[in-house]
Amino acid sequence: MDRTETPPAAAPGGPPAGVADLCGLLPAPVPDAVRAALLAPLVDHHCHGVRRDELSRAQFELLITEAVTPAPPGTTHFDTPAGTAIRRWCGPVLGLAPHAPAAVYLARRAELGAREANTRLLRAAGVVAFLVEGGHGGGESLSAAEMGRLGGAAADEIVRLEGVEQDVAREGLTCVGYLDALEDRLAARASRAVGLKTVLAYRCGPDFASSRPSRGAVIAAAARRLADPAALLTDPDLLRHLLWTAVDIARERGLPLQVNAGYGDPGIDLHRADPALMAGLVRALRPAGVPLVLLHCYPYHRQAAYLAGVHPHVYVDVGLAPASTAAGSAAIIGELLELVPYHKLMFGSGRHGVAETCHLRALYFRRGLTRALAARLAEGEWSAADAARVAHMIGSGNARRVYRL
Amino acid sequence: MDRTETPPAAAPGGPPAGVADLCGLLPAPVPDAVRAALLAPLVDHHCHGVRRDELSRAQFELLITEAVTPAPPGTTHFDTPAGTAIRRWCGPVLGLAPHAPAAVYLARRAELGAREANTRLLRAAGVVAFLVEGGHGGGESLSAAEMGRLGGAAADEIVRLEGVEQDVAREGLTCVGYLDALEDRLAARASRAVGLKTVLAYRCGPDFASSRPSRGAVIAAAARRLADPAALLTDPDLLRHLLWTAVDIARERGLPLQVNAGYGDPGIDLHRADPALMAGLVRALRPAGVPLVLLHCYPYHRQAAYLAGVHPHVYVDVGLAPASTAAGSAAIIGELLELVPYHKLMFGSGRHGVAETCHLRALYFRRGLTRALAARLAEGEWSAADAARVAHMIGSGNARRVYRL
Amino acid sequence: MDRTETPPAAAPGGPPAGVADLCGLLPAPVPDAVRAALLAPLVDHHCHGVRRDELSRAQFELLITEAVTPAPPGTTHFDTPAGTAIRRWCGPVLGLAPHAPAAVYLARRAELGAREANTRLLRAAGVVAFLVEGGHGGGESLSAAEMGRLGGAAADEIVRLEGVEQDVAREGLTCVGYLDALEDRLAARASRAVGLKTVLAYRCGPDFASSRPSRGAVIAAAARRLADPAALLTDPDLLRHLLWTAVDIARERGLPLQVNAGYGDPGIDLHRADPALMAGLVRALRPAGVPLVLLHCYPYHRQAAYLAGVHPHVYVDVGLAPASTAAGSAAIIGELLELVPYHKLMFGSGRHGVAETCHLRALYFRRGLTRALAARLAEGEWSAADAARVAHMIGSGNARRVYRL
Repeated sequence: MDRTETPPAAAPGGPPAGVADLCGLLPAPVPDAVRAALLAPLVDHHCHGVRRDELSRAQFELLITEAVTPAPPGTTHFDTPAGTAIRRWCGPVLGLAPHAPAAVYLARRAELGAREANTRLLRAAGVVAFLVEGGHGGGESLSAAEMGRLGGAAADEIVRLEGVEQDVAREGLTCVGYLDALEDRLAARASRAVGLKTVLAYRCGPDFASSRPSRGAVIAAAARRLADPAALLTDPDLLRHLLWTAVDIARERGLPLQVNAGYGDPGIDLHRADPALMAGLVRALRPAGVPLVLLHCYPYHRQAAYLAGVHPHVYVDVGLAPASTAAGSAAIIGELLELVPYHKLMFGSGRHGVAETCHLRALYFRRGLTRALAARLAEGEWSAADAARVAHMIGSGNARRVYRL
Repeated sequence: MDRTETPPAAAPGGPPAGVADLCGLLPAPVPDAVRAALLAPLVDHHCHGVRRDELSRAQFELLITEAVTPAPPGTTHFDTPAGTAIRRWCGPVLGLAPHAPAAVYLARRAELGAREANTRLLRAAGVVAFLVEGGHGGGESLSAAEMGRLGGAAADEIVRLEGVEQDVAREGLTCVGYLDALEDRLAARASRAVGLKTVLAYRCGPDFASSRPSRGAVIAAAARRLADPAALLTDPDLLRHLLWTAVDIARERGLPLQVNAGYGDPGIDLHRADPALMAGLVRALRPAGVPLVLLHCYPYHRQAAYLAGVHPHVYVDVGLAPASTAAGSAAIIGELLELVPYHKLMFGSGRHGVAETCHLRALYFRRGLTRALAARLAEGEWSAADAARVAHMIGSGNARRVYRL
Repeated sequence: MDRTETPPAAAPGGPPAGVADLCGLLPAPVPDAVRAALLAPLVDHHCHGVRRDELSRAQFELLITEAVTPAPPGTTHFDTPAGTAIRRWCGPVLGLAPHAPAAVYLARRAELGAREANTRLLRAAGVVAFLVEGGHGGGESLSAAEMGRLGGAAADEIVRLEGVEQDVAREGLTCVGYLDALEDRLAARASRAVGLKTVLAYRCGPDFASSRPSRGAVIAAAARRLADPAALLTDPDLLRHLLWTAVDIARERGLPLQVNAGYGDPGIDLHRADPALMAGLVRALRPAGVPLVLLHCYPYHRQAAYLAGVHPHVYVDVGLAPASTAAGSAAIIGELLELVPYHKLMFGSGRHGVAETCHLRALYFRRGLTRALAARLAEGEWSAADAARVAHMIGSGNARRVYRL
């Protein structure tokens, strides 16, 4: 087996794996403050609990791609930017030489066991706090608390509205009971969370009527819903009701609301997930003063950055692009930085999957940001003090402020 | 106060501020003709009179962003690409060290006074002619003549159709009187101008019916309009009437017509401002032979470059992206250059605001173009002679030809 | 005449013109396997027969642009990225110094004659197999066999559905005779071809109903069609019938189906050619298991790469962007590589025109890919073995697999 003798690159407390390499991207001599800011622990403001179970190659391949089917015969999902990056960067965290073949990587992962692999990969990400969607664990995914424990980090929960609704819909309640329970359950879950999240733009399109639905429309929709409680909720009236119930709670408790846009769900029509199409929603939510955090957004991240620049309550994240586009991600971070106010951009966001994705997201965020800062320093555009300050804001400061950590 | 002892970087007649730095971006030895072309004076084919009044910090912040509200508590609009660029590049023009804090910058600006600050910033932009929209001055903004006087440049006027209409609508005329006055006033203003401009794509969408409205529809629309003359004109029939009246005048006088697209108005739905959606308008205007100049366009500038490549009467400008995206602007200029014919791209376009924006627009245009030319020279793609010629075309030659300066 | 004494840069068997320069873009020392992969012969999976006739300057200019009209007075279509690239790279293939003026280039081309110029340019492209759309030749364009002969390569045919329909429509048949002949002709042509192609997204929009039309609707549409057989087919029912007839044949014979998206036809509304709008078509074709190859796609190539990543039967090509955007093309190839699986991207695709376009397409594909690989090698992202393997896949391996060459 093609393995190095060196200890894992990311002993707790040491610099995150891959980060030492960052400095090769910076102009020499590297300003100390900038180096420190790039090495500083991150707040991952949107992630999912990673899989706790031992995974077959077929299972693993489906967890590193947006596709829901195996790669065509004779090909592999490892032949993607994410797959190459796993072999390059995650291999050494598990004690392999860089670029070991996929089969070697997976054999080593199995040898260590999922728990040890997860622990190493999460710790080496250099994350100080995970905000975990649906962080109540159960089944195959780690809970928020487990993510924190394995990753040597704090952990908090983000409540997904549609997940709460799905639970309530299955409880066999009457219409009125269902609507009451929905409100109670959301409030209860929100009281232990640092943020809420909705995927309604994936479910009923980004340009649905953004106003509160009438009570009558909601009751009628609830009746339809309870006739088929196992289905995915796509009723616009009920999704709007869910949204506005959440907005009331978020306003009262000072919580931000995350919303998915761009790619991140293979079932969507990509062009319908352009966050620019959410202008109506953005305007409707503005009076509530609830921070609206646009997640993912690629390939419409420039549009998202524009919205964050124009609307005081809109934030945008680095998205899952760094983990998916890997060596190509610096260009995307560069495009985000074209227009986004530095107090509006935040590190994170993940998808259901493996610890490798969490690890790569942090690694490529740091590499991409390093590239952007290096160019600005080399060309005399930014001072080292500004570079360090902005790196801190995007890496953790903005999330601490918005999520009140 | 953190101020340098050196004289302002841009004494009239010297090389524009920031331009000396350009050469660091060029491969050594720098071809003389290329250097001269990059330092040559620019024609700014679309700008606005800058504010003449002394500005508070709150006022200034709102003039350097697309947002219409203050930055959220604890943040500042200076923490943006444009804000960082002002501290970096405009500071030295006012006699400060680069990167001085925002408060120091604004104190220095106040100490010099708006007139002196405007003079320094406009002169240091290295512009030989300003084409000023709504250049009749009055109120807080400099007139075209004042822009020229302060900037040491020639100045001409661009007439905004909707501005003329607003004036006429408020004069208490009858329907027929209003329509007659509209035509007369447009013709009179056009006779002293070098171009016309419309924002109709922001007002009634880019894909409105592009044909001339019937006389009946126009009269009916005029009646509605005169019932509420203070409102913003959004009636599609009246906007189309305004457009076609302007096209007739433009054709007769050989004037080009500018039209806004992409970002540049916080009230718009961004995705509705994609210039690709204007295909109907583009085709309808083609028989008239009136040059159609697409302004702004970001983040749809590739689409704009495509339209300029396919349609003989369509031109595209560098947009307000260089001033807004600052250190990130070279990538945008690179994307424009992917497909645009070199005789179709023009330097400019601004927004209402401060002289800093005018200054940065010129500076980042030169820096971005330098980067693009440097790459093409270094890789053997272009000859020095071609690079110099194309730089002259985009910087001033195309505008001189299209606007008949 | 400004001509070099050196022999043509691309003697048959030698390295392709412009490719020697590639190595300057690679980090030293250049890994041998990577260099070999970049120099290896390409499969051009979508091209057209180039013009065989002697061309006037006016004709030549219209063949190097997307525009259908001459450049405005005082300008030339040579002042474009493609025009500059022809002078830079094609000039030396014809025995001129780089950057010779357009008039000198065209004089030299005329002196050599179209046949000799075509031979030199096609051979110097370093292509081992041309897949030629409408490769039955006739008139002004070379047939597939002639392309192969002149280019020193194998050649196969791609059948354009709408071309076959146009032929059948003009034969004066009855409705039923027309529909029978359509099916027979498609099957006969497909039996000698390696793939099928449709432009239906340009003809009736990308988001038309993707299901099979009813027999009644098809017969009614056929009757309408035969009333005006010379017109361009735009009837959605008939286009859908043509599509599904082709899908049946493709499934039976194991052929892929190419579909145009993005720019590539000056008559289209660009925003209607976004491949993301084809999600319905993509889903409808998936059960058939027919590989769907998205052609062109710019400026929506990121959307195309996303579709190729999510759907097992979707492929994407490098498009005509490299030839059109020339020195700017590396950024586009970089954007494709952000998300595309390496087994889903293929070299090619052309448009009707001149051998210069074929030559530049290959040259800029190699240069852009070199740039992407060089960056990944320099930053330690990829191993040399992976870089070489991926270059082979994209350059020829994927096409050999998908088209069963």
